[in-house]
Amino acid sequence: MTDQVRIAIDAMGGDHGPAVVVPGAALALRERPGTRFLLVGDEAQIRPLLEREPALAAASDVVHTTVSVRMDDKPSQALRSGRRTSSMWMAIDAVKSGRADVAVSAGNTGALMAMSKICLRTMAHVDRPAIAAMWPTVRGVSIVLDVGASIGADAQHLVDLSIMGAAMARIVLGIERPSVGLLNVGVEEIKGLEEIKAAGRMLRELGLPSLDYHGFVEGDDLGKGTVDVVVTEGFTGNIALKTAEGTAVQIGRYLREVMGATWMSRLGYFMAKGAFAALRERMDPRRVNGGVFLGLDGIVIKSHGGTDALGYARAIGVGHEMVSHDLLARIRDQLALSQEAQTAAAALPGPAPDAAGPP
Amino acid sequence: MTDQVRIAIDAMGGDHGPAVVVPGAALALRERPGTRFLLVGDEAQIRPLLEREPALAAASDVVHTTVSVRMDDKPSQALRSGRRTSSMWMAIDAVKSGRADVAVSAGNTGALMAMSKICLRTMAHVDRPAIAAMWPTVRGVSIVLDVGASIGADAQHLVDLSIMGAAMARIVLGIERPSVGLLNVGVEEIKGLEEIKAAGRMLRELGLPSLDYHGFVEGDDLGKGTVDVVVTEGFTGNIALKTAEGTAVQIGRYLREVMGATWMSRLGYFMAKGAFAALRERMDPRRVNGGVFLGLDGIVIKSHGGTDALGYARAIGVGHEMVSHDLLARIRDQLALSQEAQTAAAALPGPAPDAAGPP
Repeated sequence: MTDQVRIAIDAMGGDHGPAVVVPGAALALRERPGTRFLLVGDEAQIRPLLEREPALAAASDVVHTTVSVRMDDKPSQALRSGRRTSSMWMAIDAVKSGRADVAVSAGNTGALMAMSKICLRTMAHVDRPAIAAMWPTVRGVSIVLDVGASIGADAQHLVDLSIMGAAMARIVLGIERPSVGLLNVGVEEIKGLEEIKAAGRMLRELGLPSLDYHGFVEGDDLGKGTVDVVVTEGFTGNIALKTAEGTAVQIGRYLREVMGATWMSRLGYFMAKGAFAALRERMDPRRVNGGVFLGLDGIVIKSHGGTDALGYARAIGVGHEMVSHDLLARIRDQLALSQEAQTAAAALPGPAPDAAGPP
Repeated sequence: MTDQVRIAIDAMGGDHGPAVVVPGAALALRERPGTRFLLVGDEAQIRPLLEREPALAAASDVVHTTVSVRMDDKPSQALRSGRRTSSMWMAIDAVKSGRADVAVSAGNTGALMAMSKICLRTMAHVDRPAIAAMWPTVRGVSIVLDVGASIGADAQHLVDLSIMGAAMARIVLGIERPSVGLLNVGVEEIKGLEEIKAAGRMLRELGLPSLDYHGFVEGDDLGKGTVDVVVTEGFTGNIALKTAEGTAVQIGRYLREVMGATWMSRLGYFMAKGAFAALRERMDPRRVNGGVFLGLDGIVIKSHGGTDALGYARAIGVGHEMVSHDLLARIRDQLALSQEAQTAAAALPGPAPDAAGPP
């Protein structure tokens, strides 16, 4: 890493491609002057957009390729047709080769994860990567992971997710020792899946300095912001994330329906326009755009595919923060500490593990 | 079952006990004249409340017991201290012995399920019971199961859940052949857990007359009401349900904050009061109160513990509907049909099962 953060951009990714990505990068540059960009994609499409953004043009190199991964490509298709040659792959590869510090793409999640795994590989001691999302709560923002990188997790992987999520939370939230909860179907120690109970015991016994293990949390703790980091395996995390998004859309629709129903409510809506604008802003998915791929030997940020320039700039901003606060080094240090503590604990004679209670 | 629906009520269950349950039953009786009640609990607490509700008093028998299950009892504790003697057990036992057609309780879910399983036992060919919830959607209401009775499910159990959920949906929604979706992390056939993919193949091949298998659905399809019945195992279902509830609370809080922020927004709120009342009603959890225990040899309805008389009356109403439309017979018939079809299919020479795709 140099002092200047260098960001590789998959300019062709997302529903709108360069038309959103280039203005998004321009916005991000205004917020973070000094950033360098590597714009990967079709030069014929990128250049005209770049001409309208002279500051970005001066801060960017364009790497030309006409190959791009489509939003509906399966990971295997994307790898077959776009390995080494696609804008997505080349953006990730710029991180691998050290020409960039982070890659950002609004392309399809499955392809981005598959390419990231193959190109960057996982960190030492990490089996599988994860996707961490920033989750708006009534208290602010929490980090939730894994929201869909892989299905299922044993206790050790849940512990690794806790460590990686806490490292990210420290950067995003500026909290020295973020609180971590394991998502479960009840808060009592005897409830839930065996691997979650085992992970809870491990986190309690490890007593890691980088995180404050809170215990189990339930689905409704996500919106409450009960803990800074919520850990779950990718299947449940993905269902929870999409369920929450769906519920927000549903309530937004209810709200529009009732506010438009009578002239009195329409007038009230007009009077309270400022309040509704504030509500929209609080619920704006662009505010927290940027899923962070964790556990890889390099940083990759996934932007929502359908976002606009503002949302894309937020995703770039997340990438910038992760680089300038050295996310990877923090994760490596904390994983090594956890490894040492586990090795030391295994060498000690200890009490027998707790008998498993009824689910 | 007689023509008159007989409802056994755990009068001591819930956060407020008889103070909510008795007025709730009185409300339910007004909506459904002719219903008979068996009120189980502490006569000293029930009688004074019943004196204020002469119509209910005339339609009720009181069964006295001073033992009750507490809201925070673990299932094992509840069984130790309340088996045979508690108001919860005795209400369920009234169904078992044929003195009532359905039991309703606002007591704690774990204890209610444990007692229901032991007292009523599961139906033939059903391994484990499930809890079905009514889920408000932009299109109306969907049935979602299992929302927490048991953790994990193999393909056969997911098929059984589909059949049981469809039988309930037919009653609640009045749809002859409800659409059924399996909750997954993607809608493509190759995605997700092996058991979900296998259940999808089974449902497609069985071609049951009682349900229209739609395919996979994702978390955001819950709020959209994409299908009439959403099937998942109890861990994910419980997380999804609580995540949606938490998101609704979170947005409600945002809304109150922004509407109270300025005098203009407060004035707007005043003008649109009717609209907000309509919104509250649409989001009112009492509207869809009543989790249905499926797969048992008897019907048990779980009311929210914190509900009021109106919500409790709704839960009783759900129980009444299930009895008067003969839920158990429908489920038994459809499960038997499915068994026959599977036995017939197994006897035929068929193509090899599909190779499992990548997750």
